[in-house]
Amino acid sequence: MKRIAVLTSGGDAPGMNANVRAVVRTGRHFGLEVFGVIGGYAGLIEGKFITLDTPQTANIIAKGGTILKTSRSKEFMQPGGRMAAINKLKNAGIEALVACGGDGTFRGAHALWLEHKFPIVGTPGTIDNDLFGTDYTIGYDTAINTCAEAIDKIRDTAESHGRVFIIEVMGRHAGFIAMDVGVSCGAEFIAVPETVTNTDILYQRILENGKNKRTIVIVGEGDELGDAQQLSLLLKEKYDISSHVTILGHIQRGGSPTVRDRVLASRLGVEAVKALLNGKTDVMVGEINHQIVYTPFEETWMRRKPLREYLIELSDILV
Amino acid sequence: MKRIAVLTSGGDAPGMNANVRAVVRTGRHFGLEVFGVIGGYAGLIEGKFITLDTPQTANIIAKGGTILKTSRSKEFMQPGGRMAAINKLKNAGIEALVACGGDGTFRGAHALWLEHKFPIVGTPGTIDNDLFGTDYTIGYDTAINTCAEAIDKIRDTAESHGRVFIIEVMGRHAGFIAMDVGVSCGAEFIAVPETVTNTDILYQRILENGKNKRTIVIVGEGDELGDAQQLSLLLKEKYDISSHVTILGHIQRGGSPTVRDRVLASRLGVEAVKALLNGKTDVMVGEINHQIVYTPFEETWMRRKPLREYLIELSDILV
Amino acid sequence: MKRIAVLTSGGDAPGMNANVRAVVRTGRHFGLEVFGVIGGYAGLIEGKFITLDTPQTANIIAKGGTILKTSRSKEFMQPGGRMAAINKLKNAGIEALVACGGDGTFRGAHALWLEHKFPIVGTPGTIDNDLFGTDYTIGYDTAINTCAEAIDKIRDTAESHGRVFIIEVMGRHAGFIAMDVGVSCGAEFIAVPETVTNTDILYQRILENGKNKRTIVIVGEGDELGDAQQLSLLLKEKYDISSHVTILGHIQRGGSPTVRDRVLASRLGVEAVKALLNGKTDVMVGEINHQIVYTPFEETWMRRKPLREYLIELSDILV
Amino acid sequence: MKRIAVLTSGGDAPGMNANVRAVVRTGRHFGLEVFGVIGGYAGLIEGKFITLDTPQTANIIAKGGTILKTSRSKEFMQPGGRMAAINKLKNAGIEALVACGGDGTFRGAHALWLEHKFPIVGTPGTIDNDLFGTDYTIGYDTAINTCAEAIDKIRDTAESHGRVFIIEVMGRHAGFIAMDVGVSCGAEFIAVPETVTNTDILYQRILENGKNKRTIVIVGEGDELGDAQQLSLLLKEKYDISSHVTILGHIQRGGSPTVRDRVLASRLGVEAVKALLNGKTDVMVGEINHQIVYTPFEETWMRRKPLREYLIELSDILV
Repeated sequence: MKRIAVLTSGGDAPGMNANVRAVVRTGRHFGLEVFGVIGGYAGLIEGKFITLDTPQTANIIAKGGTILKTSRSKEFMQPGGRMAAINKLKNAGIEALVACGGDGTFRGAHALWLEHKFPIVGTPGTIDNDLFGTDYTIGYDTAINTCAEAIDKIRDTAESHGRVFIIEVMGRHAGFIAMDVGVSCGAEFIAVPETVTNTDILYQRILENGKNKRTIVIVGEGDELGDAQQLSLLLKEKYDISSHVTILGHIQRGGSPTVRDRVLASRLGVEAVKALLNGKTDVMVGEINHQIVYTPFEETWMRRKPLREYLIELSDILV
Repeated sequence: MKRIAVLTSGGDAPGMNANVRAVVRTGRHFGLEVFGVIGGYAGLIEGKFITLDTPQTANIIAKGGTILKTSRSKEFMQPGGRMAAINKLKNAGIEALVACGGDGTFRGAHALWLEHKFPIVGTPGTIDNDLFGTDYTIGYDTAINTCAEAIDKIRDTAESHGRVFIIEVMGRHAGFIAMDVGVSCGAEFIAVPETVTNTDILYQRILENGKNKRTIVIVGEGDELGDAQQLSLLLKEKYDISSHVTILGHIQRGGSPTVRDRVLASRLGVEAVKALLNGKTDVMVGEINHQIVYTPFEETWMRRKPLREYLIELSDILV
Repeated sequence: MKRIAVLTSGGDAPGMNANVRAVVRTGRHFGLEVFGVIGGYAGLIEGKFITLDTPQTANIIAKGGTILKTSRSKEFMQPGGRMAAINKLKNAGIEALVACGGDGTFRGAHALWLEHKFPIVGTPGTIDNDLFGTDYTIGYDTAINTCAEAIDKIRDTAESHGRVFIIEVMGRHAGFIAMDVGVSCGAEFIAVPETVTNTDILYQRILENGKNKRTIVIVGEGDELGDAQQLSLLLKEKYDISSHVTILGHIQRGGSPTVRDRVLASRLGVEAVKALLNGKTDVMVGEINHQIVYTPFEETWMRRKPLREYLIELSDILV
Repeated sequence: MKRIAVLTSGGDAPGMNANVRAVVRTGRHFGLEVFGVIGGYAGLIEGKFITLDTPQTANIIAKGGTILKTSRSKEFMQPGGRMAAINKLKNAGIEALVACGGDGTFRGAHALWLEHKFPIVGTPGTIDNDLFGTDYTIGYDTAINTCAEAIDKIRDTAESHGRVFIIEVMGRHAGFIAMDVGVSCGAEFIAVPETVTNTDILYQRILENGKNKRTIVIVGEGDELGDAQQLSLLLKEKYDISSHVTILGHIQRGGSPTVRDRVLASRLGVEAVKALLNGKTDVMVGEINHQIVYTPFEETWMRRKPLREYLIELSDILV
C-alpha cells in the first residue's frame, strides 16, 4: 500500500481535525502518501483530492470543525455515485480510505466495500455518541462540555428569577448527551428517548423544589414526548406551570476539542491507518475499555448502544 | 444617613453581584448599615431585607446572576404596591435605596421618588445596553463576549458545511448587541432594529461569498423584518436560499462577568452610595467617556441612545 | 448506620464539591444524617462538623475547590491526633466517614481504620491521577483541559515568534498530566518521570522543526532531568538553543469541573455511601473500565499505576 | 496611492489579526493593493512580502497571535537596516505602511519616517496598554480577561486552603493590567509600579482578613519592590507570613480576542488606512473617549499615560 486518503462526512464534530492529523502523520510515519478528500463523499465523486503532509496539519489539533469540509451526499447513496467515486480514487492511485463520521458515513463506506471491494476503515466522528462499537465517539466529550457550560450560565438566570427552564440538547434518537449533561448539571429532571418520560414525576419535583425556585429540565431532542417546546406547553396545560425554553442548537457541534476528544481522535487515527496496513476493511475502529476494537460497519448502526445503567441511577438518587 | 438598602430588579445581568458588593463595601466604608432586598421590588413590598456586610460579599464579584434574586413585580407598578414598600422601608429604618436594573426598574424608582420623596439612585444593570446616560450598561460586555464565543463555535460548523447561518441575539428594541457581535465575528450581514434591513444586499453578499461558502447573518431580536426564523423563511421564499437558524437565548444573560463589567459595576456601586450621601436622588449613575454622569431617571428611557456610527461603517467596509 | 460524615483533604481538586454533594444526597436518600467536616483531618481533630442536607448542595456541582475546605494536617499523622479525631466523631454520634483526597488522605484513613476500626471509605480526589485502583481520579480531567487551554494560548505566541517554549505541568512523580496534555496539544516533545528523557532527540526535533518555527515542550514536574527551568538551561548550554519557560502553576487546581469529573465524582460519591452501608471499609472506591472497583487503601499508593502504552506510542508517531 | 503594506512587530497581542484583516479589507475597499510583511521589521529588511486579499483574512478575526508573525529586529534599530527595508519597499512598489505594535515598533517607524520620509501610520498593538494616545491598546482587554479567569481558578484553591497567594501579571513598567485585574478579582492588595508599595498595609489586610482565610495579592511585573517571588520572601522575613507564588506568564499574550479587542482592532485598522490616504504619517491612530485621535509617534512613548484615579480609589474602598 502506497497511497491512502482520508475524508470527513456527515455532521461535523470537534476532533475531526485531530483525527485527520493523526491519519496523515501515521501514514507518513509508515511511508505512505496521504491525500485529503475535500467535502466528504461529494468530494470523492468529484475527485477533489489534496496532498496532505505533516506541515499542513501542524496546528489543526486544537481546531473545531473539519479542514476537509463535510457534506451529506445524496448522489453517493446511489450505486452510480459510488462507481464515480471509485473511478476517481483509482485514477489518483489511491488504494484505501479512512472515513470519519457517523452511521450515514459508515453506510456509504459499507456499500463502497460491498460493491467495489475498496479497502475502507471508519473512525467514529459524531457528537451524538450513537454508534455501537466504541465507548465514546469523537466530538462527544466536547459537546457535553459545551452544553454544561451553557447550562451553567442559564442556571445563573434560573436561580436569580426562580424559574423553570427546559433546555433541549442534541443526540438524535439517543439520550447520551442529555443524560451526561443532565447529571453533570444537577438537573431536576432528564427526558431521554430511551425511557418513558413521566411528567407527573417532573411536576412532583417542581413542587418539592418549591415555588420560586429554579428547576432545570434537560430534554434530549429525540424524546418520545417531543421537543422542549412541546414539553413546555404540556407543563402549562396539564399542570399550569410556566417555563422558559432554550434550544442549545448548533453551538454543540463546534469549538476547540477537549483533551479526551483530541487524544481519542489521535489514537483512532493512528489505529485506522495501522488497520488498513494490516488488511482490515469494512470496520470501524473504536475504543472500548481503553482497548482498540474493530466493529463491522453494519453492526455500528444495527446494534443499539444502551445508556449506562449507573447514569439513570445517578439521575434518580441525586435529584 | 445611617441605613441604606440595595436591590436588583428586572432581567438579571452579569455584574449585578459586583455592583451589590460595591454598594455594601462602600456603605460600610462610610459607616452605613447596608441591607439587601431579596427579589427586587416584590421583596420590597414584602419587606424581605437581609443584613449585608463585607464577608457575605467576599466571593461574589466573579459570580453571574444576582444573589439578591430579581423579579418583575406587577404590584409595584401600582401606587398601592409602592405605598406598601415605603412602609416596609420606614419600619426597617432604611433611609435610601440603590436599585440596579433596566428601564422598568427605573420607572418604578422614579415613581417611588415622585410619590414618597424616598431617596433612590439607580445603576444600569441590563445586558441590552439600551439606557441613555451611560456608554455601557452592567452586563453588556459579558453578553457580547458570550455571543461571540457561541458564534465562533457555530462558525466551525458553518465553515465545514458551507452553510448560511442566521443567528438571533438579544437586545430588545436596540441593536447594540447585534452590531458589536456582528462586527466582532466578521458577520457577512447584520440586521438591527435601528436601520431598514435590505435583504437584496444580504442576497448579494451570499452570492458574492460564493456557493458552498459559509455566510454568517446576525439578527437583533427587535429587527423590523422579524426574528431569525422569519428571515430564514423570507430568504427561502424570495431567493431560494436555504439557511440554518440558531437563537442564542438565555445563555446570553448568564456567566461570570468580564473584567470590564466587574470594574464598571464596582465603580458605579461606589458612586451610587456617594451620590446618595451627597443628596442625589431620582437619577441613574452612569459612565460616559470614563467620567461619572448623573442622568434623571426619566431621561434614561425617554431619550434614545443611538448606535455608534463607526460600527455601521465597520460593518459595511469589513464585509 | 444513622450518621455519616464526609471530608476533603490534601490538595483541592475540581469535582470535590460534586463528590460531597453526591455523598450528602445519597446519604439522605438512604435515610442517613450527613455531616460535613470543615478543613479536612485538622477539622476532624477539632470537631468542626456541620449538618449538610440537599439544599446546601444545590449549586455546588459546578463549583471548583471544596466548600468543606481542606488542609494538610501534621497532627493527624500522629496517633494522638487520630485519637482526638475519633473522640470527636464518637461524641457527635458519627459512625462512618467518606474521605476524598489523594495518597496522604488515604494513609491517614488507613491508620484511622487500623487503630480504631472506624469505618472509612475513600474517593480519589486529586488532579495528579497517581492513585492505583481507578482509571481516573476526580479533578484530573479538568486539570488536563485547563492545561490544554493555557497551552493553546501560549502556542499563539510561540507560533507568532517562532520560539521554543518549555511548559511545566503538575503531576508530582507521575507523568499522566504531561502525557495527555502533550499529546493533545501536539507537543514536539514530552518529558515525564516514568521514562528517561533524551535531550538529543529533543534537539533533533527542534532542528527538524526548523529555525524560526515554534516548538512546544511539555515537562511533568517530577521529571528526572528536573524542572522546566533546568531543561531550558541545559538546552542553552548543551545545544545553544534559547527557549522560554512557563510554569502553569496553581491554575491547574481550580476551575469549574468538566462533565467527566462531575459525573465521576457523583458516581463515586454515591458508591462510597453504598459501600459503607454494605459494610465495606479501608478501601478506595474507584472506576476501572466503567465498573466500580474497591481497592484497599494500602494498594492505592503502594502499587504503581503505569502510563498507558498507547500514549507513549502516540507521542512518538504524531510528532 | 496604489500599494500599501501591513506588519505586526514586537510582542504579539490578541487582536493583531483583526487589525490586519481590517487593513486588508479597507485597502481593497478603497481600491488599493495590500501586502503583508512576514516577521515584522526583520521581514521588511528581507523583503518578505505576501499579497493579501479578502479571502485570506476570512477567518482570522477570532484568532490569537499574528498570521504575519512578529519579531524584535536589532538590525532595524540601525540606519543600515532601515535603508535596506526602504529599498525592499520601493522595489515592491509599496508606497505606505501600517505598523501594529508597541513603543519599540513606533520608534522604528518614527526613524523610518525621519530618515526616508516613507509614509507610515501605527496602530497600538500590545497587551500592556502602556502607550500614550489611546484609552486602550489592542490586546489589553483580552489579556486582563485571561488574567481574571486564571485568578478565579486560583481563588478556588486559595479559598479551599485558606492561603495567601501572590500572583504576578505582565505590564512592563505600567500597572494597567495589575490594577484592572486586581479590582476585578477582588484582590486584597495590588502592587503597581506607579505607586509606592506599602507592605505594612498588606500585612494589616492579611491580619484583618483573618488567619486561615485566602488573601489574593496582585503584583505588576515592574513594581519597585520587585517581582512576586521577592514579595513572598519579604512577607516571610519581615512578617513571618507564608505565601504561594504564581507567575501567570505567557498565557497572557495569547487566546482568541475579546469583542472589545476585535472591534477596536477593526476600527483602528480602518482608520489607519484612511489616515494614510489622507496624507497622515508619523502618527499612531488611537481611540480616546470613543473618538479617533492621531498622536505623533514620539509622544506615544515619551508622554506617560497615568493610571485612572478611580481605579486606585476602588482598590482602597472595596477591599
